[in-house]
Amino acid sequence: MKAHSQARLIEEMSWTEFAQAIVQDDVIILPIGSTEEHGPQAPLGTAHFIAKYLAERIGKLSGALVAPAIPIGNAEGLMDFPGTISIDPELLQQLVVDVCKNFIRHGAKRFFFVNGHGGNNAALRFAAMQLYEDHGAMVTCNEWWTLMPQISEFKAHDHGGKYETSMMLHIAPNTVDMSACDTQQIDRLTEEITFDYGFFYKGAKLQLNVPTGRIAKNGNFGTPSEEADGSLGEGVSATYAEYCAGIIHEMRGIHL
Amino acid sequence: MKAHSQARLIEEMSWTEFAQAIVQDDVIILPIGSTEEHGPQAPLGTAHFIAKYLAERIGKLSGALVAPAIPIGNAEGLMDFPGTISIDPELLQQLVVDVCKNFIRHGAKRFFFVNGHGGNNAALRFAAMQLYEDHGAMVTCNEWWTLMPQISEFKAHDHGGKYETSMMLHIAPNTVDMSACDTQQIDRLTEEITFDYGFFYKGAKLQLNVPTGRIAKNGNFGTPSEEADGSLGEGVSATYAEYCAGIIHEMRGIHL
Amino acid sequence: MKAHSQARLIEEMSWTEFAQAIVQDDVIILPIGSTEEHGPQAPLGTAHFIAKYLAERIGKLSGALVAPAIPIGNAEGLMDFPGTISIDPELLQQLVVDVCKNFIRHGAKRFFFVNGHGGNNAALRFAAMQLYEDHGAMVTCNEWWTLMPQISEFKAHDHGGKYETSMMLHIAPNTVDMSACDTQQIDRLTEEITFDYGFFYKGAKLQLNVPTGRIAKNGNFGTPSEEADGSLGEGVSATYAEYCAGIIHEMRGIHL
Amino acid sequence: MKAHSQARLIEEMSWTEFAQAIVQDDVIILPIGSTEEHGPQAPLGTAHFIAKYLAERIGKLSGALVAPAIPIGNAEGLMDFPGTISIDPELLQQLVVDVCKNFIRHGAKRFFFVNGHGGNNAALRFAAMQLYEDHGAMVTCNEWWTLMPQISEFKAHDHGGKYETSMMLHIAPNTVDMSACDTQQIDRLTEEITFDYGFFYKGAKLQLNVPTGRIAKNGNFGTPSEEADGSLGEGVSATYAEYCAGIIHEMRGIHL
Amino acid sequence: MKAHSQARLIEEMSWTEFAQAIVQDDVIILPIGSTEEHGPQAPLGTAHFIAKYLAERIGKLSGALVAPAIPIGNAEGLMDFPGTISIDPELLQQLVVDVCKNFIRHGAKRFFFVNGHGGNNAALRFAAMQLYEDHGAMVTCNEWWTLMPQISEFKAHDHGGKYETSMMLHIAPNTVDMSACDTQQIDRLTEEITFDYGFFYKGAKLQLNVPTGRIAKNGNFGTPSEEADGSLGEGVSATYAEYCAGIIHEMRGIHL
Amino acid sequence: MKAHSQARLIEEMSWTEFAQAIVQDDVIILPIGSTEEHGPQAPLGTAHFIAKYLAERIGKLSGALVAPAIPIGNAEGLMDFPGTISIDPELLQQLVVDVCKNFIRHGAKRFFFVNGHGGNNAALRFAAMQLYEDHGAMVTCNEWWTLMPQISEFKAHDHGGKYETSMMLHIAPNTVDMSACDTQQIDRLTEEITFDYGFFYKGAKLQLNVPTGRIAKNGNFGTPSEEADGSLGEGVSATYAEYCAGIIHEMRGIHL
Repeated sequence: MKAHSQARLIEEMSWTEFAQAIVQDDVIILPIGSTEEHGPQAPLGTAHFIAKYLAERIGKLSGALVAPAIPIGNAEGLMDFPGTISIDPELLQQLVVDVCKNFIRHGAKRFFFVNGHGGNNAALRFAAMQLYEDHGAMVTCNEWWTLMPQISEFKAHDHGGKYETSMMLHIAPNTVDMSACDTQQIDRLTEEITFDYGFFYKGAKLQLNVPTGRIAKNGNFGTPSEEADGSLGEGVSATYAEYCAGIIHEMRGIHL
Repeated sequence: MKAHSQARLIEEMSWTEFAQAIVQDDVIILPIGSTEEHGPQAPLGTAHFIAKYLAERIGKLSGALVAPAIPIGNAEGLMDFPGTISIDPELLQQLVVDVCKNFIRHGAKRFFFVNGHGGNNAALRFAAMQLYEDHGAMVTCNEWWTLMPQISEFKAHDHGGKYETSMMLHIAPNTVDMSACDTQQIDRLTEEITFDYGFFYKGAKLQLNVPTGRIAKNGNFGTPSEEADGSLGEGVSATYAEYCAGIIHEMRGIHL
Repeated sequence: MKAHSQARLIEEMSWTEFAQAIVQDDVIILPIGSTEEHGPQAPLGTAHFIAKYLAERIGKLSGALVAPAIPIGNAEGLMDFPGTISIDPELLQQLVVDVCKNFIRHGAKRFFFVNGHGGNNAALRFAAMQLYEDHGAMVTCNEWWTLMPQISEFKAHDHGGKYETSMMLHIAPNTVDMSACDTQQIDRLTEEITFDYGFFYKGAKLQLNVPTGRIAKNGNFGTPSEEADGSLGEGVSATYAEYCAGIIHEMRGIHL
Repeated sequence: MKAHSQARLIEEMSWTEFAQAIVQDDVIILPIGSTEEHGPQAPLGTAHFIAKYLAERIGKLSGALVAPAIPIGNAEGLMDFPGTISIDPELLQQLVVDVCKNFIRHGAKRFFFVNGHGGNNAALRFAAMQLYEDHGAMVTCNEWWTLMPQISEFKAHDHGGKYETSMMLHIAPNTVDMSACDTQQIDRLTEEITFDYGFFYKGAKLQLNVPTGRIAKNGNFGTPSEEADGSLGEGVSATYAEYCAGIIHEMRGIHL
Repeated sequence: MKAHSQARLIEEMSWTEFAQAIVQDDVIILPIGSTEEHGPQAPLGTAHFIAKYLAERIGKLSGALVAPAIPIGNAEGLMDFPGTISIDPELLQQLVVDVCKNFIRHGAKRFFFVNGHGGNNAALRFAAMQLYEDHGAMVTCNEWWTLMPQISEFKAHDHGGKYETSMMLHIAPNTVDMSACDTQQIDRLTEEITFDYGFFYKGAKLQLNVPTGRIAKNGNFGTPSEEADGSLGEGVSATYAEYCAGIIHEMRGIHL
Repeated sequence: MKAHSQARLIEEMSWTEFAQAIVQDDVIILPIGSTEEHGPQAPLGTAHFIAKYLAERIGKLSGALVAPAIPIGNAEGLMDFPGTISIDPELLQQLVVDVCKNFIRHGAKRFFFVNGHGGNNAALRFAAMQLYEDHGAMVTCNEWWTLMPQISEFKAHDHGGKYETSMMLHIAPNTVDMSACDTQQIDRLTEEITFDYGFFYKGAKLQLNVPTGRIAKNGNFGTPSEEADGSLGEGVSATYAEYCAGIIHEMRGIHL
């Protein structure tokens, strides 16, 4: 017997159901993840699982349709770690544009990208630009770890650290091995160039194309993953989803 | 507590687990689906759900690693139906090549593509060719509906018909709405050109670039979906997975 | 003195003649060949010569215009054999699309692709799809060796075997060296994987990206080329051309 | 019975014959034509027929192998005339590079491009550059109408005029309709900008991206085609082929 | 008489001078600008002029070679304003990669990108990634307006505002028209979505693909350009150049 | 205080100034240079400096707007010389098309390309063709060294020789080192193939893809650079600019 999830997942709908739904609400939520190392304790699918989970949660609150999650992103800087897969940013951009273009053809006009991995950001921003230029579509793109520090007490800025591990403990605890947690030893490039979720030189952030593996052997950095806790993941998720549902409400009111 | 599914899903493994596993077995199963109409009774994700399910089942039997499923394929011919999304075959090919190339970098040598949608076939074959040329990797590609009639009594050749609907009733019955089943009325192009899962002219199949929507208004054809049954889906799955595990066994024995 | 061949070859017409002709009949026949090994007895141009010959023969029967033949296709799997040339399927697709696009600009609306080589098939199908999507053009694509078994007693399924050699003996006997015929010794990949114009595993066809050269040292397989006969080639050609002229008649009646 | 043409055409050779030949002489002649208007009297295939004919003639004199002729080139500037087909220069370049790359894989090292159409020149030069950069291959490219005035009394610079029509009268007289000859009326763009096989401003040539059709309604210009004569075509062909065979002799002596 | 500028500009050196210099120091500074609106008072070349000026200043302090400045970048979001030119990020990325690749061929190993425009950032980061992957080259990328607030009292975050106008008053005062300064009236998208050098929703930054022109009619925003002052520009330049020369010193010490 | 150069340089104008100017005159001059060796005496930026200078001079005489100069072109054949940078012709073509496309969006209709380097020619011609096809824009492209011999006594055909060195002595004498002048020793490829700004065989020019470095060790050829003189550079510039201003006048009168 047909029984939809609470969130309206497009892949669970028939084409006739989708046809009716898109007429009533032209917003689509698109989760974009990545398959990449997240330290020895968290799974390769971390960014994918989180993006998918948050998208569905925003879907439930806002009533917007949720597109199939894209499980692969641009993780070039982590390619030294086995199991990581990465596609070129151009390929990711084209993939996202093509998917949205198809939805636009059938009535979608506004998109909410839930991005699970920082390396995807530029490709998604360019996709958004192109969708506006070529199709007049409105797109917003969101990253929970960038947003949280701005609107809450959650200082969620790590990679395979306290926050991402907490999210996975909440979403899919069976994929986490807390016994493998290991506070990362970070190497220095030079005496003057330090590393703290990014390189720093005399107090300012330094863009440097040196892959993570060269300075963080285990692949995770940021606050220690040993401190992770599932309830922290739930708190972040709830705060994030509510805020994002608010944005979607706002987007519906913008004239296109 | 970490507790893997029976199948070894790469996205649930940490990079350290993957690093150990790929050394012991260099085969990776890659499911490729599609998001496209499957009639009014079956979900848009049908091809994706089936590919993912079958890949995991083969993974359990064979012990080979299972990559994240790609949910989108080439469904150009079905773009008249709302909710269908399609990417160019070149994009799909590049996506698959890039994903496999990354795994090859970390030790994979043999790939088993579980394809859930006929429109993907050519792109996957070209990807396989390229992976051999550029990386010496061995690839086999498999479609359950093509294979079944050759090795069993299951004449599984439809689109949103008896067999695909049966598979979904077995895999995710909550996504099927049997009350929406509707034996498709098929239109003709000319008096002489008939249609039966493809165009025919005087008894021979005719390749013609006319989209499905022009002749099948509901989007499904083949044997009536009203006859679908979950146990049929289970039977097909079991037969298919066992046969494919045999191929993987054989592939391991081929010198590269 | 100007004296056209019986078939209306576009390259032999002046632009003023073409301009008049396309107004009266908007169908164009496009032969696509390949330059690739066909065993030690048949020429590298076999697929090209056959496509060109059959296209002209269909042209005569149907009155449709015949475009210049494309002599090169996708023969990646045969690249181990000297003299074989191959272009990427994307390049072939773009080439065919561009050629047709130009004809469409000047009035063509329907295309009949006469394909001389199996490796071209996917590229041609995608070209057809694109021509419909972007230009609303109707395309059919045909392969004589696939068609023959469906409509006649000719079981024409080989590569450089009885049928292809017979075609060349009919079309250009001076390019065949019957004394070089050699029934191909076929190697096995494993005990369980056999080869018979394709790999087979337990009775079902197996897509495997292993190039022909690895299992067929001479490059030809299928029925023995020693049995080839020019009159067989004539029989196949006559049956094929008549059937295809029928399709063209049918295509003219489809509303675009 | 196998009986080769005097020129060694690769498409008429079996792969075993090619394998032996390329070891003895690593030069390949590649004819590149175009399908484009040449006035009301000459066929659309003029540039293609001439390139093919001259390549075979050089092949006979020099003993070098002759590749299949490419019948389509870049004729963008003539697209106003029905029957003209044109591909992008990048596509032509890639096509030529891919074809040569394949021959290089099997032993070819030097290429002689016989170009039948001016619009192809830049693409062929870039292809040559790329073949040197990526494969260390030596390429020369030749155009008969540019060469003739430098080494003979033949002032062969027209389009569908006296010289090209003479060539066709020699090569394939049945494709020429001398009764349709018509001295072209040339329009001016401005009082100061004149046209004579190219625009001129105050005595100097002016590159201007205005298509031919805007100033030459019939599509041909240069010396009047009414003066064409088959024996002139024979004279040009003989002179050209002998000179080019000399270049090939010279190329064989250059260390690579 | 040859007399170099104090900075060692590659375009002013002969190839023999460059050949000697690159052996002694393998760092190259590459300025990348943009041609885009900067309000009614500042010139379209603002980002280009600043990048070029700062690169030369860093060159003087550090002794590193300075490459020709790229005057065009990705300014898609400003395309509503006449005179703005923009290239796709992929094109910019390829351009930068190709330029650096050439320098690498002749001995360069480290690059310092001086970026004058925020829209270029992602393309430059991807170029850096690619240069590491394909050539093992080290790249850092720097933006003065992002850096200043981290290391000084200069809160240089505007577009055509106080800081950019001050820079131009210092570098090329003749290109600024202070009488045209006009504090920008900023429109809102909705009641809840505000704008302050970017969109904000409830206190957090909101990525939204709405072009600048829709909310800022004059094209400039940030602190009022009326407050601009040349000495402020000199102060920023001096601080920035000294800091960057320090980074270059550090880069030379990193093992590659 | 704002004080424009005599030439109307777009990068020195604000967007509001540009918006007014383009309405009154729709012609834009675009200089395209190259960064490449020009012998031991002339700077790597020679082609770039000359193109920029001539464009501004034509701008002053004609009143047409002058776009930012593109400093990099296609110099593949000179890549053996350190400091030379080269981009693929396709990249250059796309760059030029994108820049012009943007100007067209804001009112430009006619373009005058001032090309400083022969290797750019084909890319610029294809860009022109594309701008006509896609945007109906008129483009002319000009090279001073090709033009001069047709309209004056200046036989300006060299590379880093008398003429180019004279131009640099006039434009930027501080970048020339006359003491480094060295009449180039030219090597031969074979006894029969000579070199004089291009290869020659029996008196006719021979296109051969052999890079300059193989036959001219110093990188310059043509008339000896020792004879260079600044006043000669001034003479060429004056003649060229006046002629080109005349063409622009003519272009304004052509109906589009």
